[in-house]
Order: sequence, then C-alpha cells, then structure tokens
Amino acid sequence: MTESSHAIEISKFSNGTQKLHVDRVAVEEPLEIRLGWSTPDGRATRSISITMRTPGNDTELAAGFLLSESIIDAASDIASIDSCGTPAPDSGNYNTVKVELDPHVDVDLGRLQRHFYTSSSCGVCGKTSLDALHATGATSLRDNTTVFDKDILTSIPAKLRRSQATFDETGGLHAAAAFTQSGELVVAMEDVGRHNAVDKVVGALSLAGQLPASELGLMVSGRASFELMQKALVAGMPLLAAVSAPSSLAVQLAQEFDLTLVGFLRGETFNIYSGKQRISA
Amino acid sequence: MTESSHAIEISKFSNGTQKLHVDRVAVEEPLEIRLGWSTPDGRATRSISITMRTPGNDTELAAGFLLSESIIDAASDIASIDSCGTPAPDSGNYNTVKVELDPHVDVDLGRLQRHFYTSSSCGVCGKTSLDALHATGATSLRDNTTVFDKDILTSIPAKLRRSQATFDETGGLHAAAAFTQSGELVVAMEDVGRHNAVDKVVGALSLAGQLPASELGLMVSGRASFELMQKALVAGMPLLAAVSAPSSLAVQLAQEFDLTLVGFLRGETFNIYSGKQRISA
Repeated sequence: MTESSHAIEISKFSNGTQKLHVDRVAVEEPLEIRLGWSTPDGRATRSISITMRTPGNDTELAAGFLLSESIIDAASDIASIDSCGTPAPDSGNYNTVKVELDPHVDVDLGRLQRHFYTSSSCGVCGKTSLDALHATGATSLRDNTTVFDKDILTSIPAKLRRSQATFDETGGLHAAAAFTQSGELVVAMEDVGRHNAVDKVVGALSLAGQLPASELGLMVSGRASFELMQKALVAGMPLLAAVSAPSSLAVQLAQEFDLTLVGFLRGETFNIYSGKQRISA
Repeated sequence: MTESSHAIEISKFSNGTQKLHVDRVAVEEPLEIRLGWSTPDGRATRSISITMRTPGNDTELAAGFLLSESIIDAASDIASIDSCGTPAPDSGNYNTVKVELDPHVDVDLGRLQRHFYTSSSCGVCGKTSLDALHATGATSLRDNTTVFDKDILTSIPAKLRRSQATFDETGGLHAAAAFTQSGELVVAMEDVGRHNAVDKVVGALSLAGQLPASELGLMVSGRASFELMQKALVAGMPLLAAVSAPSSLAVQLAQEFDLTLVGFLRGETFNIYSGKQRISA
C-alpha cells in the first residue's frame, strides 16, 4: 500500500493556548526515473530525472513526464514501465520507475538539459519559449471544435475537490483532473507538485490509449503557468481551467496554439483569457 | 522599468452574464543564467539555467539560485553579476543574467545535473535527500538560540500580504519575506514561482552581506516543501513559516537540521511541526 500521507505530532496554537495534537502531512519523496533505450552499440540505461512527488501513480507520472519533455511522442514508444528497486527503508515506498523504450525510439537526452532552447542568439523571451514548442512539433488546436457548457464548467471545481482524499487529510496537495463535456471526471490525481499532478493525469490518459484527448478539458487546483499549458497542449486537450490566476505566458501560449484558457473558476464565476468560442453560455 | 504585470482583455462570466473586461496578469518570462568561471585553460562561460520567473530582482534571483544549488558558498564568490543581452522584443525586459565568479572558485556543474544524489545504490528515498544535503556541507542549526514571539509571528502574514503590489493587481503571485524578531520585513519578494520568490529573498540577503541570517525568519505565501526548507537552511535561517501545509520531507528536513517549521499560519492560529523551542508563548 502506497503511503500518501502520514501522522506526525505537532504543537497547535489556537485562541492563545498551545496543545499537542496528532496531524497528518502529505508525503513528499524523491522519484527516480530510469530510462532504457537502444543505441547503435546496444542498450543504454540512464537515470534521467529525480523529482519530488507524492507516492502513488508513479508509472503514470513517469509516462506523463516523458511526454511533456518530448522524450517520447506516444505511449506506444514505451515497451515496459514498472516500479522497481527496493522499498525505501523509511516509508516502504518504491521510489524508482524503470521505463524501457521500444527499439525504434530515437532518444535525444540533450533536450532535457537544453529545455528545447536551441537558439538563444537574440536572448530568451516569451516568444523563444513558444518557438521552442513549435520546434518540438506542437501544433495549433485551431480545428478542435469541442465546446463546454458554462454550467458544466462551473461544476468541475467541486467535483475535483471531492476527489481529493489526501487533501482532506493534510490540506497540502494540488490536484488535476481530465473531464468530459458532460462534466464527468475521467482521471483525477493529487500531488505536492502541481506539475506532477498534471503529468499523472496526462500519463494515465496516454497509457490508456486516450491521447490526443481532443474532447477532454483539464482542471487544475492552483494557478495556470506556461508549464501546465504546455502539458495540456502535448495531450491535445483543448481547454485548461484553473481555480486561480494564469500567468502572462500561459495566456500567450493559449493564444498562439488556440487553446481555451479559463482562470479564477470559483462558484458561478470565471474569466476566459483565450478561446472563448469553446464555452457556450 | 521592469514589467511585472500586464493588461489583457478577457471575457468575465458572472451572475449568468458575460462581459468584456480589461484585467491584469502576472508576467512570466524565461530568465537565462550564464556563468563565467576560471578553468586551467582560461575562462569558461556556460548557460546553466533557464527558469520561468516574474521579471524583477533578477540578479538577486540568480545569486539565490547559485547558493541553493551549491554552485557558490557565499556572495564573495561572485566577481560581478549583471543583467545583460538585449531587451526582449515582446516585453522590453532583460532576460539574461551574467554571473562572473572569482578566479578561486572551483565549479562543479555536475552538481546541477545530479542534484547531489551521488549514491543511489539503495534507491532514492527521503533519507538519501537529507544525506545529500549533509554532503554539500549543510550543518544543523542546533546551536541557534533565536526566539520568535508568537504574537510577532502571527503579525507576519498580513505584512507579507500588504507588500505584494503585483498580487493586488493580478491575484497570481507567490511571495516570500525575511523578517526580524521584532516583526519587521527586511526583504519581501514576489514571483509566479514560490522557489523563485525564496531565491530572490536569499539572494538579496546574500548580496547585502547578511548571510548566514541566523536571527531572521522566512515567511512563504504557499506550502512548505523540501526545496523551500533547503533554501532556508542554506541561508542559515532558523525558522520557516508557511501560510499553508508542509510536506512530510519538509518536516523531516526541519527535524534533521534543527530548524523550526511553522505551518497553517493564519490569523491567531498556527501549527509547529519542528523546533518549538524557538517560539515563545
């Protein structure tokens, strides 16, 4: 059983008094992703990432990470993906995922280090970040005609909140979910890192053969950054809705690639920053 | 003038109606950090990081990043640090910081890639993350006797909130601040990334010759992760207080290195997860 929260003794100050109290905190532990692939000289294996995450759905997280970083194009590039190693002595969790790629996959690990900024002769800026996405093969969702009803949209935050078992215990986790036009949550994930929660959702869809998810929306519990929009784009999802504010570069990405970006989705109220043709009133 | 928020036209849904509206969003743009250092063959220069951040206090961010990543031990390792390059065509911001190190500084860029996990023969876990901090020379704050009065502590969130000029405009920024035992904010910074906000604070203290900040507390607007606790430790700050929840590994780090960790600091209420001897009732 993966442990996603654990108990700890704390001192609680309230109304001027201090009491000992047992509370639960969200587990944060490193996950190592090891990649195996074919080279002209045989098979190569390398540790490509160590990320702090909440244990659980680690294979989905690894698959989503590889897609987001353009190391793979689709789940069909993966020959096998498994948790491995020995359980951590302090928690009992398995903290390594081994991904073996199909022999045909051409791996360019330079991408991980360069973060796709192949040309910065003019200096980096918002535009170079968007150009870098074009260079990885990301394409506009201009022709995606999926529409979400506004009353469906406003129902999603409460559903996401109800799916958060570990948040209920700890108050300390981000969440992300993929949802349908009829308002059903297809996948919902939690993590201490919001990028991990989204990678878990995208990885789960990918491993289930559901990408591109051209008829699904992506809901996130926090703010909408460039990085999260990029993950929605990689997954082919036409809409990202966030409980809180978007950044300028998230808006620019949405405009450039014709995604719908909704922010401050709270109660019956929300803002549309891009792609309002996909929201029906 | 650095632009930290900008105006955008949005569609606002409220009370069943849709209106066009001009809103402001927090700017997110890439910052490239270029490092120059001495090798046996002369000077080397390399781009070592591209991070998404809110423009402003970029030299402090770069200094804090180099300290957090153990590339430098102190601001005295830096010979010069300047924004450079040409302003970005879309925003007018300078998005490159060039850091020239003193000739005596021995640079190990492998640390950036390995994230200090030099031995993972037993698999990574919470303990390997803490061991990695010991390996970089981090030491316990056991002998730090600084004490913060609980009424001072509960006054800090409101002061931090009042310092957030760009949050007021956009609702979309994290904040971090260093504060004294008498409750004064020494440095307060905002950023779309909470790790950046903390790097800006630590970098500002470092460049001002104020590290180790053994009598200052660190306040953060969001949750307390391993990464943020590690930055407090690097800065020698004995207390980290967060508005929201800590993670399990943040608590373990605080216990291992004798830092005080306060979470859910809201109104008159807070929880102490480690080091309660530094809070006076």
